[in-house]
Amino acid sequence: MEGISERYLQKLFEGTGDNFTHYLRERRLQHCWADLANPAEAHRSVSDIAFGCGFSDAAHFSRSFRDRFGMSPRAFRQQQAERVSGLGVKTGQRGWPQDAVAQLRAHRPAPAIAAAELKLVDCAVSRGGKPAHHFLTVDATRVHWGFFSRALKPLIEVVSGDTVTVETLTQHASDDPELMITGDPGAESVFRWTREGKGVERRGAGPMDASIYGRGAGEGFGVHICTGPIAVKGAEPGDVLEVRILDMVPRPSRNPNLQGRIFGSSVAAWWGYHYDEFLSEPKPREAVTIYEIFTGDEPYAQALYSYRWQPQTDPYGVVHQTYDYPGIPVAAETIRRRHGVLDGIRIPLRPHFGVIGVAPREAGLVDSVPPAYFGGNLDNWRLGKGAAIYLPVSVPEALLSIGDPHAAQGDGELSGTAIECSMTGTFQIVLHKKADFAGRPFADLTYPLIETETDWVLTGFSHPNYLAEFGAKGQSEVYAKSSLDLAMKDAFRKVRRFLVNTKGLSEDEAIALISAAVDFGVTQVVDGNWGVHAVLSKRLFAHEDGL
Amino acid sequence: MEGISERYLQKLFEGTGDNFTHYLRERRLQHCWADLANPAEAHRSVSDIAFGCGFSDAAHFSRSFRDRFGMSPRAFRQQQAERVSGLGVKTGQRGWPQDAVAQLRAHRPAPAIAAAELKLVDCAVSRGGKPAHHFLTVDATRVHWGFFSRALKPLIEVVSGDTVTVETLTQHASDDPELMITGDPGAESVFRWTREGKGVERRGAGPMDASIYGRGAGEGFGVHICTGPIAVKGAEPGDVLEVRILDMVPRPSRNPNLQGRIFGSSVAAWWGYHYDEFLSEPKPREAVTIYEIFTGDEPYAQALYSYRWQPQTDPYGVVHQTYDYPGIPVAAETIRRRHGVLDGIRIPLRPHFGVIGVAPREAGLVDSVPPAYFGGNLDNWRLGKGAAIYLPVSVPEALLSIGDPHAAQGDGELSGTAIECSMTGTFQIVLHKKADFAGRPFADLTYPLIETETDWVLTGFSHPNYLAEFGAKGQSEVYAKSSLDLAMKDAFRKVRRFLVNTKGLSEDEAIALISAAVDFGVTQVVDGNWGVHAVLSKRLFAHEDGL
Repeated sequence: MEGISERYLQKLFEGTGDNFTHYLRERRLQHCWADLANPAEAHRSVSDIAFGCGFSDAAHFSRSFRDRFGMSPRAFRQQQAERVSGLGVKTGQRGWPQDAVAQLRAHRPAPAIAAAELKLVDCAVSRGGKPAHHFLTVDATRVHWGFFSRALKPLIEVVSGDTVTVETLTQHASDDPELMITGDPGAESVFRWTREGKGVERRGAGPMDASIYGRGAGEGFGVHICTGPIAVKGAEPGDVLEVRILDMVPRPSRNPNLQGRIFGSSVAAWWGYHYDEFLSEPKPREAVTIYEIFTGDEPYAQALYSYRWQPQTDPYGVVHQTYDYPGIPVAAETIRRRHGVLDGIRIPLRPHFGVIGVAPREAGLVDSVPPAYFGGNLDNWRLGKGAAIYLPVSVPEALLSIGDPHAAQGDGELSGTAIECSMTGTFQIVLHKKADFAGRPFADLTYPLIETETDWVLTGFSHPNYLAEFGAKGQSEVYAKSSLDLAMKDAFRKVRRFLVNTKGLSEDEAIALISAAVDFGVTQVVDGNWGVHAVLSKRLFAHEDGL
Repeated sequence: MEGISERYLQKLFEGTGDNFTHYLRERRLQHCWADLANPAEAHRSVSDIAFGCGFSDAAHFSRSFRDRFGMSPRAFRQQQAERVSGLGVKTGQRGWPQDAVAQLRAHRPAPAIAAAELKLVDCAVSRGGKPAHHFLTVDATRVHWGFFSRALKPLIEVVSGDTVTVETLTQHASDDPELMITGDPGAESVFRWTREGKGVERRGAGPMDASIYGRGAGEGFGVHICTGPIAVKGAEPGDVLEVRILDMVPRPSRNPNLQGRIFGSSVAAWWGYHYDEFLSEPKPREAVTIYEIFTGDEPYAQALYSYRWQPQTDPYGVVHQTYDYPGIPVAAETIRRRHGVLDGIRIPLRPHFGVIGVAPREAGLVDSVPPAYFGGNLDNWRLGKGAAIYLPVSVPEALLSIGDPHAAQGDGELSGTAIECSMTGTFQIVLHKKADFAGRPFADLTYPLIETETDWVLTGFSHPNYLAEFGAKGQSEVYAKSSLDLAMKDAFRKVRRFLVNTKGLSEDEAIALISAAVDFGVTQVVDGNWGVHAVLSKRLFAHEDGL
């Protein structure tokens, strides 16, 4: 989870008016902020929490916290406790109408309201002209589930250079609500689903009346819980948005019985690559594996138990024979837990965000599953702490959303899911205006470009822009026509173009270099729009110009 | 080039009656052996060479060398010098008949003759019952070019546990003969081609009379210079041959003007993935890039110059409009060298053997290009120093061949070639008898399995056994029907089977683990039979059984 060099972190801060020492202090303060807001940490004293976050002097901590967040640690803790108990009541009474995006929009807080709710943001913004830090906690009013849309009203507005801490939830928390939802006000708000209503009614880009399959509002055409969108001040189509992942921490269980332990889930689902390939009976079948996550120097996930998916009746009475709609609360009494699965096997963590995307321009409601030029569900494990992603802006204010947090995933994401685990990320958002592009690596960017400490990772897709390519039918056609062969071709063309336009190579030089040094890998074969990425080592260029 | 831990090297030696200290001494002695045999090193004194290889006492070195190789360093140097000058005369007079494999076989030395030529082998074998070390120097009598065949007579016979140092040549040495052939007796012998004859007539598995395209004997249906085959005593179909790569060093130029510098070549050829995709004129075109290799702590390749392929008239008078036959000596006056290509770019080395294979059972002459169950042209850069490969034996004595040395390659090998560079490898050969398989990782092996210090690498192919699948037409059909989608399916099936049969997982556990932790990568898209590999980290299992 750590594993990136101080030097690289310092580089990340270059030219943003910030510095590394400041970042370290900021990060410690944020950890304290999160712990103080966490009901599961209520038994610890404020001093305890301060020491745990790296402060050695309680008075100094208290001053720093007040300077940073505009109130004392104690006052903040009190405020959060009240807010949480308030939420618990309010969310139980809310409900989303079963209708279209117009109504969805009406129910979203306008930017001004969002800013008022997030008082901490205001404190941050006022820090003497420096880049502001924002906090985006997660609850039902701050997510869109299963779709992207240019029509969504943003929750907050950031200015280029600002940092933002974003809580994200895995849509698989409902695979074991006891471990991943109970006691967590944010998760309870988002996953709330009773006979009377849901915290978030629309799940997917399908019709609200579920007139196609009857699965539920939005039909589950799209599954990811996305926090956002975030407006970027001044962003216009043609610009490039850089999103730097400064930090990423898993969200501990807030179930009082589970004392801050961390859990995740992985489903070998009907959309997995293996689904038509079973050797053993019963065929086909879906299997859920619940993992516990262990942090430390070599963080890892270990399976706790698994179960076969059994038909689940959702609170509205719809029976789900398969895992066909996100957020169905799995009833413990309907499944049989198998223990001792993957016994003794420790899966090294690769925490990353499956989804980071800006709103696509082509359609008003876009299924969150197939990734494309606008980013979205990239499912590339390189998109973790220390990485940055460059996204082509295609609607005003960019409308950035983040979700689908993963604790670990292999290239391919074969079963259809990673180890899905709620996470909180801290990002720096940098807007690159089209007029200032010349000579920059993203000068002619038409796709999501990932930069890590060591590599450029270029994302190829079976259909780089399936929305434009297939028109109105895009959101179903792309699923039918995906192929690694197409994705490979796209990845090759992109890396050649990058080398020619960004590194100034001739076409022949680019091809020679690709063959000798660029690694092509299978990103995923389960997201409708299959992916192949090209990994280009920065080390190749470390000696240019005699350096 | 180094970069593997001592601990791992020690592990490699476990259970083979050998040890690490012995290996280090052995390696130093081998380096001295190579330097003493190298005409380009003739200006250095024997003591100089001994010191250069890590011996600090000349008398001790002399004794060790005599113990090891049965003669003094001075006597050995003299013998080699005579052998080389003798070869120079003899090879100029030899010529291969333009006919079939039967005749090829008649011209190969029988095992007894090979052993007599390789006196050093005999010395090694006599070491008191310990595993023997063999040397297989390269010349025209010790290679087969562009094909595998169960009908080839082996050059030497090894016993399980033996080690063998094998010189291999890149088939691209002729792209700049001055740098990579001139002055090197082994390379001169293999590449010899005058109006009167060739050092190695057959190049490829095609007809000797070139009646299909007229390119030359064997038609270039297969291009790799393979040293071997090596017979493994007692190997039978159904056994598994393990080939451990203990060491790998590039072969320096022996051109007296180039003082031991190291060179390689890479061709963006008509069989490359990019060939139908050119953006710039002229279309299509072939480009050759010549590299210099720099060793040291962070070894790298840097481009020296490049040229566009121009029609070459071979010594038999055939004009080659494209790079359609291996070993055509490129005439310096026909091409225009471009300097300053890939300026300042250093390509980190990943030395590996493109080809390690045993003889296939299905056909008498098999094109060396498409890899398959028997290994062959795997073109996976993980097959370097410290790695091992497990190959299913399918003919008596296995008939192991090694070639196609690469200094660096990216996953994909996009242009059709890596940075091709002659190399000398030291291998340990271990035979696993079918009766002793139970519980071993290769217990039901049907494909080439690579083991590195950190990973299991399972090789998937578009057509895992194209020879059986397509029958007589296999060697052309495979080229027409390759697809990454098929190779991905094969890689998935193989890694699932490995996890179930070798690690004892259920099918559901295997699928969960693959999704969370196994990386699928594109091996190559240029070898007829496209490849996708699965990388399974050993670290996952490091904590099993409470360890």
